[in-house]
Amino acid sequence: AEVKKIAVTAGDGIGPEVVAEAEKVLKRTEELFGYRFETEHALFGGIAIDEKGTPLPQETLEVCKNADAVLLGAVGGPKWDNNPKELRPETGLLGIRKALGLFSNLRPAVVFDCLKDASTLKPEVLEGTDLIVVRELTGGIYFGEKFRRDTDQGQEAVDTCAYNVSEVERIVRQAFEIAQKRRKKLASVDKANVLETSRLWREVVIRIAPEYPDVELEHVLVDNCAMQLLRRPASFDVIVTENMFGDILSDEAAMLTGSIGMLSSASLGEGSFGLYEPVHGSAPDIAGQNLANPIATILSVALMFRMTFGYVDAADAIEKAVAEVLDAGHRTGDIAVDKSKAIGTKAMGDLIVAAM
Amino acid sequence: AEVKKIAVTAGDGIGPEVVAEAEKVLKRTEELFGYRFETEHALFGGIAIDEKGTPLPQETLEVCKNADAVLLGAVGGPKWDNNPKELRPETGLLGIRKALGLFSNLRPAVVFDCLKDASTLKPEVLEGTDLIVVRELTGGIYFGEKFRRDTDQGQEAVDTCAYNVSEVERIVRQAFEIAQKRRKKLASVDKANVLETSRLWREVVIRIAPEYPDVELEHVLVDNCAMQLLRRPASFDVIVTENMFGDILSDEAAMLTGSIGMLSSASLGEGSFGLYEPVHGSAPDIAGQNLANPIATILSVALMFRMTFGYVDAADAIEKAVAEVLDAGHRTGDIAVDKSKAIGTKAMGDLIVAAM
Ligand SMILES: CC(C)[C@H](C(=O)O)[C@@H](O)C(=O)O
Ligand SMILES: CC(C)[C@H](C(=O)O)[C@@H](O)C(=O)O
Repeated sequence: AEVKKIAVTAGDGIGPEVVAEAEKVLKRTEELFGYRFETEHALFGGIAIDEKGTPLPQETLEVCKNADAVLLGAVGGPKWDNNPKELRPETGLLGIRKALGLFSNLRPAVVFDCLKDASTLKPEVLEGTDLIVVRELTGGIYFGEKFRRDTDQGQEAVDTCAYNVSEVERIVRQAFEIAQKRRKKLASVDKANVLETSRLWREVVIRIAPEYPDVELEHVLVDNCAMQLLRRPASFDVIVTENMFGDILSDEAAMLTGSIGMLSSASLGEGSFGLYEPVHGSAPDIAGQNLANPIATILSVALMFRMTFGYVDAADAIEKAVAEVLDAGHRTGDIAVDKSKAIGTKAMGDLIVAAM
Repeated sequence: AEVKKIAVTAGDGIGPEVVAEAEKVLKRTEELFGYRFETEHALFGGIAIDEKGTPLPQETLEVCKNADAVLLGAVGGPKWDNNPKELRPETGLLGIRKALGLFSNLRPAVVFDCLKDASTLKPEVLEGTDLIVVRELTGGIYFGEKFRRDTDQGQEAVDTCAYNVSEVERIVRQAFEIAQKRRKKLASVDKANVLETSRLWREVVIRIAPEYPDVELEHVLVDNCAMQLLRRPASFDVIVTENMFGDILSDEAAMLTGSIGMLSSASLGEGSFGLYEPVHGSAPDIAGQNLANPIATILSVALMFRMTFGYVDAADAIEKAVAEVLDAGHRTGDIAVDKSKAIGTKAMGDLIVAAM
């Protein structure tokens, strides 16, 4: 088989540990399915600030650009929280998204059967929840002009939120296409009663909707969506929205599943290239202690196989293995009911590899 | 007693019906406590568009400016949804906030005992939830410059988000003061890892926090806050945040209480003047059918008494009457378990008046 190049940016906190388990899964996939992977590690985030003086070194960007996909662990931690902007892990995250043209962030929020009780929502409300937030990732207020200026009222800070027609169109089309392959329902979220960018957004959605007649479309205001996610989570299929709203709503959606330690995400651009990462953060408090749950990162590999490489057989095998291990009752501390029986990061990785 | 002038903008949908019940409560308060109110009705929202060609007629603004407080029903409805911006009810809402200098929106989210089960959250998670969102209401992306321009990528829409030091300071000080009178915990919500306005916001909060040493302060990123509200709602006391984040988070907080049909809100400026309204919307689908729940509007009157007039005795009496009527098992359709036993808007108002 053709060698697939995977850039690995393990990052900070628990990043390296969970990525190590995902790499075991890559290796096992080679043995079982005959696929071939070449991984190249690169410094990113806090560790890159420490070792190279910037969260996204040029050589890291090159490694990613030369790869077919990127596997990201997690970045950030209190150590860098008070750094100036250019020396913060998050700046690297925004930089890599922009530099690689990753305009779309897919955040599936599903409920794992064995974690149903971990949600703070009532089980009957959660029943059947399986949605995906499609978040625009390289536009809006995240990337608009930012500055300070002096006024009579003291210093003023300004952020600019801009979207053009093509930016909206490409993400909305992608969302319609994803909906076509799922339950064929799309909720477009905006604040069209207040924002000009939202009015443009809604105009584009309305204009292209007729090209996807099989998809049932609803427009939901962002404040209402924050409520409806709580009231009727199972009624959503695909939610598409701009960068800032997507940040907030995808985290709300992830948390309500109760399965946040298990969720993976994909950031995609024009072609098949993608960056895959767990939804959870770098959890510096438990880093280096073999306590982290590697499942979200392992499932990020499955997502990579499915979306970038088209290795559906291997993706299925990984997801099935994860389900089996969980069904057998194995749990890391974050998802264990009886914490005294919790297993470590490595043991969880090994069990999943063995179950493949 | 001194005559207090109340401007009444009943608005659209169920607005007039629920406001009528609140006016019965005003009248009963005069009889019971000797306070004196003079109400003046004014057109606002959709009905003002229909009758005067603008959602916020100049004479309505004058009536409000001459009053000591405003009681607002609800505005909006499908009839005006596709109107151009100047002819939309929401534009009137933004206009009245700005014109009256109502820079602060207080949205208490409490759980009514009798509605505990109405929440989609597990009762044990909700237990003890009693928080208030202090939302900045006249700044940020809602009021910044908005425009379109042509680019190579098609038309581009732009919204501008700006905050100056005084704007942040006055709302944050108010939030600290509210926290001092409550459980002394303040969560300041921003997106300081991405936005310049949030960095300014956080700087101001950090600078003035030492003046309120009795208040325990935490900084929470907006995406994380959307999650924490779901995970640990009872741990929040006062949440202070900018306009757009406040819109989203206050609705999420209201919905998770399960009591959204019962919540009232206050919009305040520099002095004692305030605008009071139910959190719920205009519910055009049930308008004019004597089906709406008037409790949120009646409780808005109690909030007005407490915050603007200092009529604590009357506020207490109203809140106690509401609790009694609910305890006796009376319910409007929205909160009734057995819908066949539900009572109407007027009957609910009458029962509360009688219980005072
Ligand atoms: C760390 C931060 C810049 C980032 C974002 O807001 O995009 C994170 O919250 C995310 O959602 O990936
Ligand atoms: C109607 C709309 C403009 C308004 C807002 O976003 O402020 C509403 O959602 C609210 O929260 O009062």
